[in-house]
Amino acid sequence: MNFCSHCGHTLCFAIPDGDDRPRYLCESCGTIHYQNPRIVAGTLPVSGSRVLLCRRAISPRKGYWTLPAGYMENAETTQQAAARETREEACAEVTLRGLYTLIDLPHINQVYMMFRADLLGGFDAGVESLEVALFEEHEVPWDELAFPTIERTLQHFFADRRHGEFPLHISAVTLEDRERYFGSA
Amino acid sequence: MNFCSHCGHTLCFAIPDGDDRPRYLCESCGTIHYQNPRIVAGTLPVSGSRVLLCRRAISPRKGYWTLPAGYMENAETTQQAAARETREEACAEVTLRGLYTLIDLPHINQVYMMFRADLLGGFDAGVESLEVALFEEHEVPWDELAFPTIERTLQHFFADRRHGEFPLHISAVTLEDRERYFGSA
Repeated sequence: MNFCSHCGHTLCFAIPDGDDRPRYLCESCGTIHYQNPRIVAGTLPVSGSRVLLCRRAISPRKGYWTLPAGYMENAETTQQAAARETREEACAEVTLRGLYTLIDLPHINQVYMMFRADLLGGFDAGVESLEVALFEEHEVPWDELAFPTIERTLQHFFADRRHGEFPLHISAVTLEDRERYFGSA
Repeated sequence: MNFCSHCGHTLCFAIPDGDDRPRYLCESCGTIHYQNPRIVAGTLPVSGSRVLLCRRAISPRKGYWTLPAGYMENAETTQQAAARETREEACAEVTLRGLYTLIDLPHINQVYMMFRADLLGGFDAGVESLEVALFEEHEVPWDELAFPTIERTLQHFFADRRHGEFPLHISAVTLEDRERYFGSA
């Protein structure tokens, strides 16, 4: 961030009066440019004993498997965002069953909100997916999952399914978790 | 948003290739400036039979009562944000007890995440509060609450407390809800 999006003046990076952390500030028009975490909303679509996964057609992690999820947009709700991403990536309609995992990623300024969902009818690969398929637990490609948030959401689901209760799981993916997942290379 | 924060060029507002909604685009450097909802994280601090409220020292809704809450910052978790806001606005330490209300406000691009919490020790007015106090249910200033999200969170709490269970409540504040709350003036 170099220039003020309001007036075009060069920005500085300093602590505003009355604040406690540095922000991008415009000394010309006075605008403070706050930066905040973004929500990634998605679903864990279930059909009978199987779960739906999408193989990514885009980077990052192209070719790896993921649950349908993406950045929440302005002017929509978290549940609308989760259903929209499922429609876009898997051409699938779902009935949402409640918030299931809330995962903070403070190192990349994201908050994942994954909803359990019942798959309704068919599915197909959306433009951001190479393929979309249903997997039994023993078929899940654990070594080819795209993100630690997806692995964790699936692990919770299969563990919870053994006793039929699906409470909300709140956790964080730490920098160490990320390095363990992606390797330090 | 008028100028590219990356290169300073004038922005246009158009649908990027492969996208389905208009964004602020820089035709000079190619940057797409996405805008996404922000998370407001906070707590419902409980001490015995009373709840803690803060009277706002700043606009909007200066002079009205609220639960401690504010914008989540980069590089923190939702729970760290909720605890930090409680510390800043009420000089209070809390033990978080789980996510309690998740309220979408699509008309103003906010998502509230309020955690139930146990108040630990004392409290005082932070710089953004005129006063901070504990209220029994019959003492809550319902007509002087700052925001519909705060009213709704307190209503859920007192209703749930009668039977001792506090499930997560997910809802949205619609434009109609906002107009009813603030008046259409």
